Amino acid sequence: MATPEALGEAIAQQSALLVDLRKQQADNAVIEEAKKKLGELKKAQGQLLSAGGSKESGKKKERLLLKTAKGTRDYGPGEMFCREHIERIVKECFTTFGGSCLDTPVFERKDILAGKYGEDAKLIFDLKDQGGEELALRYDHTVPLARYLAMSGAMNTHSKFWQIGKVYRRDNPVMSKGRMREFSQADFDIAGVWDTMIPDAEIISLLCTILTRLELGDFIVKLNHRKILDGIFEVCGVPADKIRTISSAVDKLDKLPWPEVKKEMTEEKGLDSAVADKIGEYVKHKGGPTLLEQLVKDESLMANPSAKQGLDEMGLLFGYLEAFNVLDKISFDMSLARGLDYYTGIIYEAIVEASAPPGFKSANAFASSSTQPAVDSSASTPAPAPKKKSKKPANADEEEEVDESQVGVGSIAAGGRYDNLVGMFAAAAAGEGKKAAGLPCIGVSIGMDRIFAIVWPKWVERGMRSKETMAYVMAAGDGLLKERVQLVQTLREAGIKSDFLFKNKPKLPAQFAAGERDEVPFAIILGGDELKEGLVTVKEQRWEFAPDGEKRKVQSDDKGVKVKRDGLIDWIKDTQTFKEWSSGKLISS
Amino acid sequence: MATPEALGEAIAQQSALLVDLRKQQADNAVIEEAKKKLGELKKAQGQLLSAGGSKESGKKKERLLLKTAKGTRDYGPGEMFCREHIERIVKECFTTFGGSCLDTPVFERKDILAGKYGEDAKLIFDLKDQGGEELALRYDHTVPLARYLAMSGAMNTHSKFWQIGKVYRRDNPVMSKGRMREFSQADFDIAGVWDTMIPDAEIISLLCTILTRLELGDFIVKLNHRKILDGIFEVCGVPADKIRTISSAVDKLDKLPWPEVKKEMTEEKGLDSAVADKIGEYVKHKGGPTLLEQLVKDESLMANPSAKQGLDEMGLLFGYLEAFNVLDKISFDMSLARGLDYYTGIIYEAIVEASAPPGFKSANAFASSSTQPAVDSSASTPAPAPKKKSKKPANADEEEEVDESQVGVGSIAAGGRYDNLVGMFAAAAAGEGKKAAGLPCIGVSIGMDRIFAIVWPKWVERGMRSKETMAYVMAAGDGLLKERVQLVQTLREAGIKSDFLFKNKPKLPAQFAAGERDEVPFAIILGGDELKEGLVTVKEQRWEFAPDGEKRKVQSDDKGVKVKRDGLIDWIKDTQTFKEWSSGKLISS
Repeated sequence: MATPEALGEAIAQQSALLVDLRKQQADNAVIEEAKKKLGELKKAQGQLLSAGGSKESGKKKERLLLKTAKGTRDYGPGEMFCREHIERIVKECFTTFGGSCLDTPVFERKDILAGKYGEDAKLIFDLKDQGGEELALRYDHTVPLARYLAMSGAMNTHSKFWQIGKVYRRDNPVMSKGRMREFSQADFDIAGVWDTMIPDAEIISLLCTILTRLELGDFIVKLNHRKILDGIFEVCGVPADKIRTISSAVDKLDKLPWPEVKKEMTEEKGLDSAVADKIGEYVKHKGGPTLLEQLVKDESLMANPSAKQGLDEMGLLFGYLEAFNVLDKISFDMSLARGLDYYTGIIYEAIVEASAPPGFKSANAFASSSTQPAVDSSASTPAPAPKKKSKKPANADEEEEVDESQVGVGSIAAGGRYDNLVGMFAAAAAGEGKKAAGLPCIGVSIGMDRIFAIVWPKWVERGMRSKETMAYVMAAGDGLLKERVQLVQTLREAGIKSDFLFKNKPKLPAQFAAGERDEVPFAIILGGDELKEGLVTVKEQRWEFAPDGEKRKVQSDDKGVKVKRDGLIDWIKDTQTFKEWSSGKLISS
Repeated sequence: MATPEALGEAIAQQSALLVDLRKQQADNAVIEEAKKKLGELKKAQGQLLSAGGSKESGKKKERLLLKTAKGTRDYGPGEMFCREHIERIVKECFTTFGGSCLDTPVFERKDILAGKYGEDAKLIFDLKDQGGEELALRYDHTVPLARYLAMSGAMNTHSKFWQIGKVYRRDNPVMSKGRMREFSQADFDIAGVWDTMIPDAEIISLLCTILTRLELGDFIVKLNHRKILDGIFEVCGVPADKIRTISSAVDKLDKLPWPEVKKEMTEEKGLDSAVADKIGEYVKHKGGPTLLEQLVKDESLMANPSAKQGLDEMGLLFGYLEAFNVLDKISFDMSLARGLDYYTGIIYEAIVEASAPPGFKSANAFASSSTQPAVDSSASTPAPAPKKKSKKPANADEEEEVDESQVGVGSIAAGGRYDNLVGMFAAAAAGEGKKAAGLPCIGVSIGMDRIFAIVWPKWVERGMRSKETMAYVMAAGDGLLKERVQLVQTLREAGIKSDFLFKNKPKLPAQFAAGERDEVPFAIILGGDELKEGLVTVKEQRWEFAPDGEKRKVQSDDKGVKVKRDGLIDWIKDTQTFKEWSSGKLISS
């Protein structure tokens, strides 16, 4: 049976054909035949509708909402040219640091994701049960990597993995700041039993290398250790079963002032007020190796085995970070807690000055590397304007819109050590009571959309091209379609990105306009007489900002240069412009 | 409240810590403290369980199935190195042909996908309704592109788009042949009102360029025209409302013999047997320009306006394909119909000899470009062994497994012209009775997983590396960790992909083994005394297949070369090996 949609489509096609035939002044018999068929199709449609063949098409159709799903967006040519550039740099750093690429499916069996994300599990996108397995879209790259490592077990001889791809969270989007429901993360992870803190130092060195190469401006990497935090909670008197939830509260200190966080600890989570105050004293510290020296003198802290181990490891780490020459980028920040359940060792978060929220950056994230308090446990705070406190409803679709001007891009990369995640999978798969080998891991996730949100406005400002096309082949004479096609084909085979206008007899200004729209540096003009002599005309052109802010074409020689058609490829490849584009210089500079 | 999972995690961590502390022979008091905390945690867990705090954890836990979702898979390091190589070539061709990159979300609002895929709509993956919009995973890149073009309207000045990304179909997977539920497609599309058949010829030229550059072996591009097919159906007497469904049946001729297709037409779809036989006479033809000449002489066909237009366009196209120098790759195949509803002009499909199903390739797809019948309307057929005919149940999860040995990789690329799809979106969004501008388009989709299924076995056979790491830095002496880190950092900053072993005092053989696992061409050895003189030892190594089929290391000079540490970067960059890797030669050769 034809569907109403297929019939509608056929009618549209037939009508278009009829218009074409009339335009082409086709044979009368042919036109009559086409008209007859259109009539038949319309009759068939009428029958189908009156027979109630389709309830949907029978009623008045609602207008289609032409948009992407909430929290998602398209990236057009200019934006993708910029995103590809960012991705190329990140990939280059990943492979330079010895990483191997891994790719996992965009959805996982739901039980793989269960119990990994603490309070944020409600943000997981589920697939509809269409028979078969229960599935959900991946929430990050870390859990799929751990699942992969548990599956491949000791078979896997690689130890450094990178992944770039999209992950999904049903959170409240802030599109302009790169906070999306579908967003791209670039992850690098090191698995294996290695000497303490060496892979940890390498990951942080990698992160600093990437952020430097991306030219994002000043940045710092906030650093802390879960074992130090847990030790502090124990020393302050937090009951064992409240440690993770109190840790989640501390993690909000980069967004909320201390009194609000304390309120959450005491009123919502039932912590004793005096205990909360003790915690407040500890987590206000940030600094470098000096802060560490200070903490090592804290006897009650050092008597706690967890804190002691964390502090010892931190000391080792600082030494290695010095060898990697990145110590100046680090801020040991005792208020950093990270929300995810699975971290077991050091944790970190990179902040770029350009991406901090308004009125917040200098006071908090970019304090000089001293032991100045980040939070003040008294009433006055350097925190952002108090916002209406709203409990998150279960369904983020119902939530009110976020005020985008009050939100920074936030941290652009984060990660930590997770030594038990692979082992948890292996143990769960082995069954209760069975032993299974684990695999210590550490990783970092780079928020590609947040980086794009910082880089893209600069590209717009600098009027960057959105294409790499090098040559535009035009005809001055009578169309010369075959000659244009043949030359374009020759150039393309030689690796010179080239284009031409899809018209039989285009006018020269139309061809120039098309080439100029893409800011193509070489205009190659074919003329009938010149071609007979084996010559073509080449005009080299570039674009510059005029004083009035408009971008305009600058041409070195208005008449162009005559070049032998047979030597054209060498001629182009020998120009400075071609060399600079080929080396990527004109994109990254 | 702590969850049972969080508590379990905390207990696991605390146990591990206790083991560590005992190993380190820590202070007795510290160990006692750790033991005490472990006891508290276990007590908390006991209370939680006995209070029925978690029904799930109370009962015996089922074993976790450690696997990816049906029809999906992970790609590990070696495979991804190969896939990245394939993708790099395809992208390079896309930009050489003037394409601009586009990226759309992995899911769309469900009404965007509705009514676009005919009988295959049941294969769409839906997301669960979690409040908010009804969403589904994208089924291809074409419909999202059309949605994007309809949204951006006349604002969009680009005309050539490429997209590489995953698409989703709840079909029955044949994993070894690259038929997956999650699979990667690389699309190139040309939008705009251009002179007839010029963009069409360019797309086919692009497809031939890509398949040639990928070195997949012999291939052909089967080509047909929807208007010719529709004309044939009309001339043969197929009622207007049955044309699409009869077209779907014809499309199965590359998988089923004619008698089965005829049976589908007559028994399932109610077509008159004589009409079916007439169709069978037409669709058996395949060839080149000669076939076209023959058809143009068919008066009943030329009297049909649709067929006439199709044949005229085909003539134009052959001329342009000659200019693009790809005519020898083309087979005008009248049995090619393509399943999708939205095609309106030429349609095509590329088949690689290596990917045809067994016993099928020479008889059908790779017949010489003559007018030999592809199907024989009598009983005997060159088709594959008859398989059990099984109607597809609505739920592909319940279907029995496919016999993989009987399935070829199939077409590795396909596409066609779709002139009405953008207009359909624009019209549906404008509302009933409103006029909206359309945008003619043509595109091709390349099946990246099917290409991988052909290329990967060759990589395995040739023993390809799975990494590009160039240098492995080792210590001969007493660990020299800081010296190794500093040299690795220097090399990496200079763009030389380098690595080292994450151990304080690794043994030299262990370091060699690690570098050899990745087949790193330069082993750089640091020794205490040499370093004082500013020297390092470099051993260049490569791997070759020995006559016994084992891959073994070959070393030019067993003692290595002494190189000044300060001149090491220039020394490496000046080697033939480095130059060949940098230019990609050692990957693609």
